[in-house]
Amino acid sequence: MRDYEMKINVLTLFPDMFTPLQVSMLGRGLEDKKWELNLVNFRNFTTDVHHHVDDTPYGGGAGMVLQIMPIKKALDSLTNKGKVIITAPQGKTFNEKMAQDWSKEENLTFICGHYEGFDQRVYDLADETVSIGDYVLTGGELPTMSMIDATVRLLPGILGNAASPVEESFSHGLLEYPQYTRPADFEGQKVPEVLTSGNHQKIAEWRHKEALRATYLHRPDMLAERILTDEEKKMLEEIKLEKEN
Amino acid sequence: MRDYEMKINVLTLFPDMFTPLQVSMLGRGLEDKKWELNLVNFRNFTTDVHHHVDDTPYGGGAGMVLQIMPIKKALDSLTNKGKVIITAPQGKTFNEKMAQDWSKEENLTFICGHYEGFDQRVYDLADETVSIGDYVLTGGELPTMSMIDATVRLLPGILGNAASPVEESFSHGLLEYPQYTRPADFEGQKVPEVLTSGNHQKIAEWRHKEALRATYLHRPDMLAERILTDEEKKMLEEIKLEKEN
Repeated sequence: MRDYEMKINVLTLFPDMFTPLQVSMLGRGLEDKKWELNLVNFRNFTTDVHHHVDDTPYGGGAGMVLQIMPIKKALDSLTNKGKVIITAPQGKTFNEKMAQDWSKEENLTFICGHYEGFDQRVYDLADETVSIGDYVLTGGELPTMSMIDATVRLLPGILGNAASPVEESFSHGLLEYPQYTRPADFEGQKVPEVLTSGNHQKIAEWRHKEALRATYLHRPDMLAERILTDEEKKMLEEIKLEKEN
Repeated sequence: MRDYEMKINVLTLFPDMFTPLQVSMLGRGLEDKKWELNLVNFRNFTTDVHHHVDDTPYGGGAGMVLQIMPIKKALDSLTNKGKVIITAPQGKTFNEKMAQDWSKEENLTFICGHYEGFDQRVYDLADETVSIGDYVLTGGELPTMSMIDATVRLLPGILGNAASPVEESFSHGLLEYPQYTRPADFEGQKVPEVLTSGNHQKIAEWRHKEALRATYLHRPDMLAERILTDEEKKMLEEIKLEKEN
């Protein structure tokens, strides 16, 4: 039986960058051996005396290109690679569904690039090419950490007493309803009365409708993919009327 | 005259997570005072003896909610906030255009949440609500660091001798062309001949076409928004024919 441990390998030139995964809940998960993080500096797999990992591009041009050799050797040194993932703008955009799929794996390996970009043949070493979004970063470390965070938090025992992942945005196809805590009145901004009414049925209905409203107003694309219940259809009619008035 | 320094404030419960911004090129930029990073732990702005930053949600339910008071006080303590940015799933998805706009500001302030979520009224403290993508993270620190990286790298003097930001993906509306470096033959995978031809005109044409091909194959949505030159229209016809054969 699967004991829910996951081992994640990361090939990077900056292993020191990975502190964000070693504090808070993910850090406790490491201590409790719910998951493992194996940081591999592929500079250690160079064979030249200066430990170069990059070289000038064929065909000329500014900048340098990360070579395939050290990365290939670092990959070959791993005993359990599992799925090999690389970030690149041409990849499929990372989403919660990918994190859910990856959270079922026992091993994952991420290759982190650098502002310079990879030799094109490096992409053939990966099983999945993933884009983190339509923006450019100085390296693959931050997006890789985000992907690891999104994946590892879904493993049993990581979130502890926090809300279950299934109650959250994107997991059930709606944005989350608004939450409030003390003070009940902040500089005139009050908590909606229903939430202090003690009527659990009414609170549940309000939350359902507000989740629907947030999704309708901000992410109508998510609603288009959803099969609405009769109750939700009625709520949505109300929301549209309320928007007009 | 603007001296191109930018000061970024970050409100977070985990200032220790921010090491990725303090190494490599962004770290050198900090040392060279091209930009400043001011990490503010809003737990220091609590008034109760236990320094609680969260409380149970009105209306009940699992988990805790981050309170508005410590965050408001931390914000009020800043002399130059500039634009205040918060991450949330209902926000507009972060992209390179936002990074470009933000890179023109002198001050930016990011509020980092936590797996628990903010009191709804916290969102009213922000000028912009930004989503990092359709996935859930344990906190706002990693997406905030990605947004800072994407923004700061565009400041003058950060990338140094690396390729100019304008040559990159999303900056000019096409994915990047494939790059190659040594070895010329890696386990039978060879560098395209044109790149070693020394013919600069041919190399430029090949790169232009391959950028167009990558965009056509992987991100046709980017092409739809682009006004093609006559040369690009001809290249695209060839690419479509080559795909069929």
